[in-house]
Amino acid sequence: MKKTLAELAEMIDATVSGDGNVVIEGVAGIREAQEGQLTFLANPKYERYLETTRASAVVLSPGDREAGERSGRPLLVASNPYGAFARIMELFAGPRAVVERGVHPSAVISPSAELGRDVAIGACAIIMDRAIVGDRVVIHPGVYVGPGVTIGADTVLCPNATIKSSSVLGERVIVHSGTVVGSDGFGFASEGGEHRKIPQIGNVVVEDDVEIGANVCIDRATTGTTRIARGTKIDNLVQIAHNVVVGEDSIVVAQVGISGSTEIGSGVVIAGQAGLAGHIRVGDGAVVAAQSGVTRDVPPNERVSGYPARKHSQAKRLLACVAKLPDLIRKVGELERRLASVEEKEDR
Amino acid sequence: MKKTLAELAEMIDATVSGDGNVVIEGVAGIREAQEGQLTFLANPKYERYLETTRASAVVLSPGDREAGERSGRPLLVASNPYGAFARIMELFAGPRAVVERGVHPSAVISPSAELGRDVAIGACAIIMDRAIVGDRVVIHPGVYVGPGVTIGADTVLCPNATIKSSSVLGERVIVHSGTVVGSDGFGFASEGGEHRKIPQIGNVVVEDDVEIGANVCIDRATTGTTRIARGTKIDNLVQIAHNVVVGEDSIVVAQVGISGSTEIGSGVVIAGQAGLAGHIRVGDGAVVAAQSGVTRDVPPNERVSGYPARKHSQAKRLLACVAKLPDLIRKVGELERRLASVEEKEDR
Amino acid sequence: MKKTLAELAEMIDATVSGDGNVVIEGVAGIREAQEGQLTFLANPKYERYLETTRASAVVLSPGDREAGERSGRPLLVASNPYGAFARIMELFAGPRAVVERGVHPSAVISPSAELGRDVAIGACAIIMDRAIVGDRVVIHPGVYVGPGVTIGADTVLCPNATIKSSSVLGERVIVHSGTVVGSDGFGFASEGGEHRKIPQIGNVVVEDDVEIGANVCIDRATTGTTRIARGTKIDNLVQIAHNVVVGEDSIVVAQVGISGSTEIGSGVVIAGQAGLAGHIRVGDGAVVAAQSGVTRDVPPNERVSGYPARKHSQAKRLLACVAKLPDLIRKVGELERRLASVEEKEDR
Repeated sequence: MKKTLAELAEMIDATVSGDGNVVIEGVAGIREAQEGQLTFLANPKYERYLETTRASAVVLSPGDREAGERSGRPLLVASNPYGAFARIMELFAGPRAVVERGVHPSAVISPSAELGRDVAIGACAIIMDRAIVGDRVVIHPGVYVGPGVTIGADTVLCPNATIKSSSVLGERVIVHSGTVVGSDGFGFASEGGEHRKIPQIGNVVVEDDVEIGANVCIDRATTGTTRIARGTKIDNLVQIAHNVVVGEDSIVVAQVGISGSTEIGSGVVIAGQAGLAGHIRVGDGAVVAAQSGVTRDVPPNERVSGYPARKHSQAKRLLACVAKLPDLIRKVGELERRLASVEEKEDR
Repeated sequence: MKKTLAELAEMIDATVSGDGNVVIEGVAGIREAQEGQLTFLANPKYERYLETTRASAVVLSPGDREAGERSGRPLLVASNPYGAFARIMELFAGPRAVVERGVHPSAVISPSAELGRDVAIGACAIIMDRAIVGDRVVIHPGVYVGPGVTIGADTVLCPNATIKSSSVLGERVIVHSGTVVGSDGFGFASEGGEHRKIPQIGNVVVEDDVEIGANVCIDRATTGTTRIARGTKIDNLVQIAHNVVVGEDSIVVAQVGISGSTEIGSGVVIAGQAGLAGHIRVGDGAVVAAQSGVTRDVPPNERVSGYPARKHSQAKRLLACVAKLPDLIRKVGELERRLASVEEKEDR
Repeated sequence: MKKTLAELAEMIDATVSGDGNVVIEGVAGIREAQEGQLTFLANPKYERYLETTRASAVVLSPGDREAGERSGRPLLVASNPYGAFARIMELFAGPRAVVERGVHPSAVISPSAELGRDVAIGACAIIMDRAIVGDRVVIHPGVYVGPGVTIGADTVLCPNATIKSSSVLGERVIVHSGTVVGSDGFGFASEGGEHRKIPQIGNVVVEDDVEIGANVCIDRATTGTTRIARGTKIDNLVQIAHNVVVGEDSIVVAQVGISGSTEIGSGVVIAGQAGLAGHIRVGDGAVVAAQSGVTRDVPPNERVSGYPARKHSQAKRLLACVAKLPDLIRKVGELERRLASVEEKEDR
């Protein structure tokens, strides 16, 4: 496909600066882009590449327009350049890789499972008793769908994903490879040093438009439901324990761990490798910094970091104080010497 | 199933407070429970729900009895309420989901493998040469059992688990989905900047009554055995490196990493996301707090936290000291000013 | 197989100390070794086992020769004892477990895939359209190879690994079980609180002689390529985000997370559970300590640790300062009292 810059501007409601007749045939990152490709500038660290990129045009924000114009390059000015670029990528990427509709002969489907219209079920996929698979669902090869699972329309399960019994997935959900939804929660009653398994009889509900990365674990509830609400996006290798609730449109970055019964609000961002204790609540719009250890409730819209996690401004101040410690210790030593000298004079 | 509170009390050796004729038809968490259900109180944070829960009765400890009675609700008083609740859950949960016995026609079983009585082997499961599968073992769909693996009676391997060659699993072991037992240890001999693979010719032994969560990795030993001893429970996404030994009845929480050749004693608890260096020893009964970085041996029964991990009481004290740093820096500044003023007077 | 110590010494270019006629029939770690076995000493912590090991001979470095001779045990003295031991292990381990060549009848191979000579493709393995599989490649049971994947000669994919579309694997690559190569990068454009998926249209390239552990995630690039360069070794449960580049002969230990677009140089070591922010660069030969949080560029050959990661010498100094804090706080309190007493005298 080929589009002029002016045509793209119209599609995404952006402004052209420079030659609108430049022809764009593809998209790429600012460092990899070649002639004929469109790139974007969203991270200020990459502003220096404006000069050197081989891209034929750049999408950027009004704030970067001046720098862009100095580079002499044709521009698309958009209020959300990353979002604008995403829409143009969709255009050039074309429709999702076509998956052959139908059921592969090597797939094993229980006679009591119900399949919707136009599903695609890959080789060696397993669909157990009473599972309900919505219209246009794509189940890639090697996926396991357990007994009584319900899958909404247009959901995609990537190769070797595992969805265990009684899980409920909404519409347009994406579950990446290696991910396990609905495994047993980690619950034991300890008596006399031995650990007796607590039956995990709840389930997992994943609402519409959720995306779950690769090799994630979302455990079923002990009783009741572990819930990932609409629109939330979860990165790879995340651990979500039994009875956790994650609100709508939240972002959970790779290798985060959320302990049992903790509730995450809507629009929350939890950055990579953060850990959250059990039975706490993170309010709507809160941001948890990478590698934080959250041991207490986080109020709505608060930004926390560090271990134990506290308000980010405080945590930053403490880190700055720690960096001054060698100097402080030196100062205190000096004070001791000077004070001793004053005391000595007095004693005379 | 329906049971009166008095009947349940007798089964689990608990005391009824209030109306023993209340009929219980199910179990649930204190926030989700509905009329006709039994719930429990084990975490003091949830005491406030005693007033608002819709449950028909509550299991609690003698210490909470008074609060329970104030709520006017029928109670089951038990010394270990979580354990008591677990036993009642087992009753209402009924037997484990019935798995069809026999071998699914799509499973691939080596002619040299030996299968015990009443095994259940699911669709597309693979059992390689010379594997020995004990009586009543359940191997769910998509599981791989490598050459020479031995699996004890009543063990359950969840969908898409991978048990590599020469691993030995005991009886009543549970391995959850996506978990890899017996992958190569991470061992290389570096010469001239290149890394030459050290053959990993040992194995993994998992003893009776161990439960291993989802997407866990337990590497085989370089030589000898990586061992998880009887009764230990491992949560999701845990990394256990080559030649590690974990003692009996220990608890390893999600996303913990244990480096090569480290020995964990019995009855140890390692909380979430903690990391342990290689070649160290954690004594029996020790507790490692979440996100700790353990770089040295931990004595038996010691509780450690922080990075580098130290006695928990010390680590807590240091954290408290760090929190006072802004104040301390201010104080030292003030001391400097006051001392300078004293010195000035003296000089006059 | 049996070899005398003198024969082994000749093979690996080492020096015998003591009886060169001792017969060696196998290898083992210093604590597990039995009579007739060779062991090695590389970690000084294990020097004390020189006295008690049952091994018939020990490989060690010239620096440990004296201690070894004091133990009265036959020795092989080699400049790199771990490397020497590795070569002897290869000898005794024999060739890699023989895998039956050919395609298992239950494997599902697209008619448009191309298979090289002497490949081994296991039960229920899936090879999608246009995949190219090099000579002598071993694809174990349950592996998924996506459309358009290219796999170089002698590469091994362990059971239940997932290689997604358009990934390129070099020669002699090893991918362990449960690992996902080529899953979508975690990229969203957020508008009005909702997160719109950015199509991930790049791929993953894994160069020759790379080894990737179990349950690892390596995401495809948004555009362009996520690259793991020749000879790099990656441990279990590692997260490598979209557009990351890891240079040659680097080591990435278990549970490390590398965020998007970060570049790791050659010969870098990143220890367990470290986290790296996105869009940064770690120079050649740098070392990142376990559990570090790296938020900025790391110069070549620098060793960093802590959160935020700084030069290791500085980070160690700060940790030492923190350990002195209780003492410092006490000192400052004492200074305050003494100064107040001086001030009081002056006022009189």
